[in-house]
Amino acid sequence: MNDTPTILKTLKNTPLFKHCSETVLQNFATQSTIMVADKGQVFFVHEEPAKRFFIIMEGWVKLFRETLDGTQAVIDILPQGYVFGESSIFQNDQYIYSAETVEPTKLIAAPLHLLKSEMDNNINLVREMLSALSIQKRQQDKELEHLTIQNAPQRIGCFLLRLTSQDIKGRVRIQLPYDKSLVAARLGMQAETFSRALSKLKNATGLEIKGATIELDDIQKLISFSCSVCTSEFPCKDLECGK
Amino acid sequence: MNDTPTILKTLKNTPLFKHCSETVLQNFATQSTIMVADKGQVFFVHEEPAKRFFIIMEGWVKLFRETLDGTQAVIDILPQGYVFGESSIFQNDQYIYSAETVEPTKLIAAPLHLLKSEMDNNINLVREMLSALSIQKRQQDKELEHLTIQNAPQRIGCFLLRLTSQDIKGRVRIQLPYDKSLVAARLGMQAETFSRALSKLKNATGLEIKGATIELDDIQKLISFSCSVCTSEFPCKDLECGK
Repeated sequence: MNDTPTILKTLKNTPLFKHCSETVLQNFATQSTIMVADKGQVFFVHEEPAKRFFIIMEGWVKLFRETLDGTQAVIDILPQGYVFGESSIFQNDQYIYSAETVEPTKLIAAPLHLLKSEMDNNINLVREMLSALSIQKRQQDKELEHLTIQNAPQRIGCFLLRLTSQDIKGRVRIQLPYDKSLVAARLGMQAETFSRALSKLKNATGLEIKGATIELDDIQKLISFSCSVCTSEFPCKDLECGK
Repeated sequence: MNDTPTILKTLKNTPLFKHCSETVLQNFATQSTIMVADKGQVFFVHEEPAKRFFIIMEGWVKLFRETLDGTQAVIDILPQGYVFGESSIFQNDQYIYSAETVEPTKLIAAPLHLLKSEMDNNINLVREMLSALSIQKRQQDKELEHLTIQNAPQRIGCFLLRLTSQDIKGRVRIQLPYDKSLVAARLGMQAETFSRALSKLKNATGLEIKGATIELDDIQKLISFSCSVCTSEFPCKDLECGK
């Protein structure tokens, strides 16, 4: 099957490529492949030489690093539309993290050398990358801040608020995007800490958990609980997506 | 006094400007000013409209944000050679943090509009900014990781190791760059937590503290204590400077 038209369509919908010409996109599309992966597939490992970068079409991918004794530090869990692996360009072509699917995932694998040569000539592409990275950095500032000034239940509350529409009022239903164990890992919490913190959050705000669905009779309770201990206010200015 | 020659010399030594032409540098230099500030001077406040960015010639500057109730989250404490305020370009020309000197400081204030117009035309400048931001982001990944997998004494140990030469062996003397209270704030610790953690670190590694000087008979003890709980090894690959 010829994947090129599908790849081309996805590239056109990916902000990273919005300043690339039709010719360049066509070139990317013909030299890229679509990959389908089950849950738990590792695409590359931290410090491995980097030849390709990836664009997620469907599913979720976890970026992480491991200590010598196997403790995992989760850097991010990325949804559809996100790009990863391209940061190796700034680390002597070595991946700066490991990447593994956390559910069945479909993605595009594209050659890094094409991105590098396009970055030599296309100032708008480089500006787009700089702008996206700046947004990611700002979101990370916020995570660092929360780790030092919020407690664990407040950080779970913030995670849930980030999943809702920013103009919502009153009763709300929030769908967890992936397993609770992954939410815990994403927030850098041990399973037991997460479980205790979730109980406290339930008591403080009255939210109800039904499997992967969270219901709350008034979103304002969650906002008061979490956003009072934050340097942003709700609606949150730090929520622009860093695709 | 004409500051232009001094400013020009500093700009030429600042990595951000290494791809700017002599004409552009001259233009920056004539439109910038040197400022001298005492400890505690606030240059700008989070979300204020941004007109200028800054280059530190001497001293230290703290970047931070505050919650409504006045709790401060320290984002970074920057030494000589670093640039700050330029990230407002990616946030609708609003500063994304507040900035305050933590000791007497000398810096260059430069107009943001010049940087923006140069970014429209100079691809190498934008690439340089992207590369620097990528290094900062990687260092921040590491901080987030440490906040979740290292304990407080190990994080202080890592902070000290970052201040030493990366090829050092045996006996070592480390000079704290600023007040212990600022080190605590930079590491996101309350004063009491920091003090308790420092005692534990002393017991575990035998280091001695004399004012702002820290002495240790064998650096390897500190490496074993901190770097075993990290996804990097010593010498640390995440230490490149993000100037």
